[in-house]
Amino acid sequence: MFNSFGATLTEKIKARIESKDKFFSLEFFPPRTKAGAVNLLSRFDRMRSGNPLFIDVTWHPAGNPAGDSETSSMMIAHSAVQYVGVESMLHMTCVGSEKEEITRFLEKAKGLGLRNILALRGDLPNIDEEWHYDPAKFNYATDLVKHIKQEFDDYFTICVAGYPHGHPEAKVYEDDLMHLKEKVDAGADFIITQLFFKASTFKRFVDDCRAIGIRCPIIPGVMPIQSYDSLRHIVKLSKLEVPEEIKLIVNPLKENDDAIRNYGIHQATEMIRELFSSGYAPGIHFYTLNREVASTAILKRLGLWSDIKRPLPWRLSADPSRANEEVRPIFWTNRSKSYVHRTRHWDEFPNGRWGNSDSPAFGELKDYYLFYLASQSPKTELLKMWGEELTSEQDVWDVFANYITKAENKNGIVVNKTPWNDEDLSGETEIISEKLSKMNQNGVLTINSQPYANCIPSDDPIFGWGQPGGYVYQKAYLEFFTCEENVLALLQILGRFPGVNFQAVNKSGSINYTNIKNKKPIAVTWGVFPGREIIQPTIVDPIAFSQWRTEAFGLWTEQWGKLYEAESTSSSIINKISDTYLLVNLVDNDFPKGNCLWEVLEDMFSRRKLNDKLQLRTSLVEWINMHSSKK
Amino acid sequence: MFNSFGATLTEKIKARIESKDKFFSLEFFPPRTKAGAVNLLSRFDRMRSGNPLFIDVTWHPAGNPAGDSETSSMMIAHSAVQYVGVESMLHMTCVGSEKEEITRFLEKAKGLGLRNILALRGDLPNIDEEWHYDPAKFNYATDLVKHIKQEFDDYFTICVAGYPHGHPEAKVYEDDLMHLKEKVDAGADFIITQLFFKASTFKRFVDDCRAIGIRCPIIPGVMPIQSYDSLRHIVKLSKLEVPEEIKLIVNPLKENDDAIRNYGIHQATEMIRELFSSGYAPGIHFYTLNREVASTAILKRLGLWSDIKRPLPWRLSADPSRANEEVRPIFWTNRSKSYVHRTRHWDEFPNGRWGNSDSPAFGELKDYYLFYLASQSPKTELLKMWGEELTSEQDVWDVFANYITKAENKNGIVVNKTPWNDEDLSGETEIISEKLSKMNQNGVLTINSQPYANCIPSDDPIFGWGQPGGYVYQKAYLEFFTCEENVLALLQILGRFPGVNFQAVNKSGSINYTNIKNKKPIAVTWGVFPGREIIQPTIVDPIAFSQWRTEAFGLWTEQWGKLYEAESTSSSIINKISDTYLLVNLVDNDFPKGNCLWEVLEDMFSRRKLNDKLQLRTSLVEWINMHSSKK
Repeated sequence: MFNSFGATLTEKIKARIESKDKFFSLEFFPPRTKAGAVNLLSRFDRMRSGNPLFIDVTWHPAGNPAGDSETSSMMIAHSAVQYVGVESMLHMTCVGSEKEEITRFLEKAKGLGLRNILALRGDLPNIDEEWHYDPAKFNYATDLVKHIKQEFDDYFTICVAGYPHGHPEAKVYEDDLMHLKEKVDAGADFIITQLFFKASTFKRFVDDCRAIGIRCPIIPGVMPIQSYDSLRHIVKLSKLEVPEEIKLIVNPLKENDDAIRNYGIHQATEMIRELFSSGYAPGIHFYTLNREVASTAILKRLGLWSDIKRPLPWRLSADPSRANEEVRPIFWTNRSKSYVHRTRHWDEFPNGRWGNSDSPAFGELKDYYLFYLASQSPKTELLKMWGEELTSEQDVWDVFANYITKAENKNGIVVNKTPWNDEDLSGETEIISEKLSKMNQNGVLTINSQPYANCIPSDDPIFGWGQPGGYVYQKAYLEFFTCEENVLALLQILGRFPGVNFQAVNKSGSINYTNIKNKKPIAVTWGVFPGREIIQPTIVDPIAFSQWRTEAFGLWTEQWGKLYEAESTSSSIINKISDTYLLVNLVDNDFPKGNCLWEVLEDMFSRRKLNDKLQLRTSLVEWINMHSSKK
Repeated sequence: MFNSFGATLTEKIKARIESKDKFFSLEFFPPRTKAGAVNLLSRFDRMRSGNPLFIDVTWHPAGNPAGDSETSSMMIAHSAVQYVGVESMLHMTCVGSEKEEITRFLEKAKGLGLRNILALRGDLPNIDEEWHYDPAKFNYATDLVKHIKQEFDDYFTICVAGYPHGHPEAKVYEDDLMHLKEKVDAGADFIITQLFFKASTFKRFVDDCRAIGIRCPIIPGVMPIQSYDSLRHIVKLSKLEVPEEIKLIVNPLKENDDAIRNYGIHQATEMIRELFSSGYAPGIHFYTLNREVASTAILKRLGLWSDIKRPLPWRLSADPSRANEEVRPIFWTNRSKSYVHRTRHWDEFPNGRWGNSDSPAFGELKDYYLFYLASQSPKTELLKMWGEELTSEQDVWDVFANYITKAENKNGIVVNKTPWNDEDLSGETEIISEKLSKMNQNGVLTINSQPYANCIPSDDPIFGWGQPGGYVYQKAYLEFFTCEENVLALLQILGRFPGVNFQAVNKSGSINYTNIKNKKPIAVTWGVFPGREIIQPTIVDPIAFSQWRTEAFGLWTEQWGKLYEAESTSSSIINKISDTYLLVNLVDNDFPKGNCLWEVLEDMFSRRKLNDKLQLRTSLVEWINMHSSKK
């Protein structure tokens, strides 16, 4: 399946109903702590790979749900859209709220790229007191639906809740159905039901809805039973009855969490199978209680966990303002969240090709708080990976080499992250890991690379992206930090490789040497597909490289150096590397002939040896000045 | 050399001087008749293939030089820029003109894409009378240079004339040099000299110019001696002296035109060699007298005739407003002048990719007068090629087949044009001509095609375009008229070729059937180059195809049918084809696997036979309706 991120959620649901392609969605509640937020977003990342149609985030009126903290409902939903790249729906309750306040919330949600709202009444202020109708405020979910339509027209897709057992507070089930009809008539696009335990409950509910003229999609909400306590708790909150046949099974297993969870998975799977096969449910909504094991297991059993296809080589954002984004610089490949964050204020995204980026208004790195946090592990863990005490630059080089090979370091720890990598090594990097590891051990500290690819089918498990039937291509790319002497040797031998473009910069930018003409971008990943224009989603842009330079050099000290005491040897080694090494990138343009970059580096090492032997005195800057004036 | 059409002529001259890459330019005068205009533009086409830096067109004040007729100076210069794609300079004289008039001329020139002016005083109204200075009008070329600068800032590149012998009317050579200095100080960008016969004349002139502070480029103007009479005529007009040594050779040859021409070629070649080797001349300007043989011969001897490299697969226009144009629909490949004409009012040209052409404002075909004319041969000639009397559709099919094979028809005539082809068959078409010919003989009337190309070096003599070191690609494309029964058979078998996109339309557009999704364009020619983004200069755009449909069907009757009497059999055969055939295009997306389009057509013919045998009664429209409703 090929997602079109321009489509609204309603359109996506309708398309899936039409194609009889069952879907699933996942509900989460906002975390209480920053660490919880980081964990939850990692969970979103993992769940996203199963290709949910959307996730939704509940609204906690007491927890400043529209606030700017990392844990607010709104920021969690925003982060899911922006960084995880998954379509998200924000819950919103209204009872007792002023119109202005709700409008403000909705405006903010819109500004953050959210465009789906689950409109709820919400719990009454005090559940024990009699509730008093106040015409100046919102009283029912219907009021909220009407308000959204009135103020925002069709911008938001609106979902409302349905109660297959009747709402706990409704006098009668039929009254409740009529309220649902009102919500739909007011403009709701689809319905998600409250949880239930028997397929027949949902089927009756759908039949009854259709009978009174409700025509929109109705999605069953399912909560897999995960433990005896949580079941009891939820049932009490929802004022539901657990059917006798389930009680009979669960009660004896009270003390056996594993057994209950397994039963829950079995029970939900069977119920969903029936909902699907009977044609009553177009998809399924999971009340996950912020856990992933049960939902994942059920989805896999149902064959609904579909490894997501990559429409482009990098992960798309689900933010509608980025719907047309088609090109990104390669530099942020391993820090894509940082890229999305630093470009979040762009009005237009490059479409078709990169074009001119003379003044790309990249946002400041210091705003990058949430995912800076996400990439942070406890200091002790990082020290074990990156070295509690550094005695030489070689110690640093070994960290890079260990990261590539996934071998244990001398502390017996696998180095699974570096400051320059948000995510795990990609499959295509593993192909070249042996060569990369050797280079790193010798002081060529690689932070980004891609192998060449010549006319690989677009459904290839490693290189493939985009629609089937196409062909994808890559120019070999390598980016690394290395010392001035190596860069000098590199420049000396590069004349023998006319098909290679390079850039070499130092921390301050005072050295910025390249053979790229007119600072034009170079496409390094592209694809040719049936019935389409060429797509070129990844480029090397010399101008954007300056933005990346600041970030890449900064990470040495901000993430690594600051682990050590200010005046320590370890700290000074990191500072020295950051101050004296250069950041270099290489592109081998001659993709049909393979990849000459390894040969380039081997020649560089040989030349370096020769220079050392000859005790060459020319500095890098002298060499550059000499060769620039020659032209 | 790779032209950058964004650069001004001054910049181009400076770049060539800097790179020591000698250049040439060619001067022509406007023709007297329409037929002469057509011939002159064909000559431009031929001369362009030698890669002149620019051509210039003289200004005939008596001949309405700024008028809209095909023969005016301005329209000739405009056509050269727009359709021939060669940088052009317009002469303009000013003496006795009002400022408003000149401003109007310059505005018009600008509007027509001209941006180079050779600013001249012009002949005095009556050469025998004493000339009276009139401060209200233009008096000297300097006035015109100042006026252009004042009114148009740096928009125009300005050239002025230098007189190596002194201007015929100047009292002294030194005065004349000072006038030249004034013109340059007023803003002229470079100088072209009047003709001369000895290298030493030009060298002295350059030395003298430099001595008084003239620093701009000075290009020698050379007139190859082409005949005794023209030499005498020109010399008289220019009030020049022919050097004795030349007289001594030419006079005895008075009656032998060939000998004089050969001497002229020799003399000019030797003189230019000296001008080049001494470093005095950065390039050469030819006074062609509208002839091409002598200049071409000299250029070839000098090694200056360089077969032009193709920056893109189609011919660029030299109009600055089209400087960024990078993509065109494939349909007009053989009628590129028509395409340029119909899109000449576009404000922006597709750049990088085609994008959305929902409302492409293509100009009317009826405006297409000048090149409609150019593609017209005498009626008798066309009748000999296309058939004085048609007795069946097969007669028409044979014309198409003969055009492809370049074989003589039964009149002993080679069919070297059809209404759908402005230009000769391209080299790449010849590769597939045998197959094309067979198809045409069987009623698949091909009007456009390209073979597939997979990763061909960009300097390939047939497929290559763009800078060296790159690789070019093509998807196989075929476009043809054929009868309804064939199209039906084609649609029946196309299901077996999932990699093929098709469009089939009839004259009225009431049938417009395609499997292209969302009417998106398909790239069919693209290139991958070192240090650049991907370039995709040719596309199949379903929406632009509707514009092309009207033009393509119209040509049947407007160019072919109207050769015959209104009620004749011949005329009705052409009308029937135009009314009942469909125009079909096919794209084979699976370019790495070659070209399956021949197999598609062979399957179509087999299916057609089967249908005939089975006496299939389904009409094309019925079939389409049946298969559209199925979806």
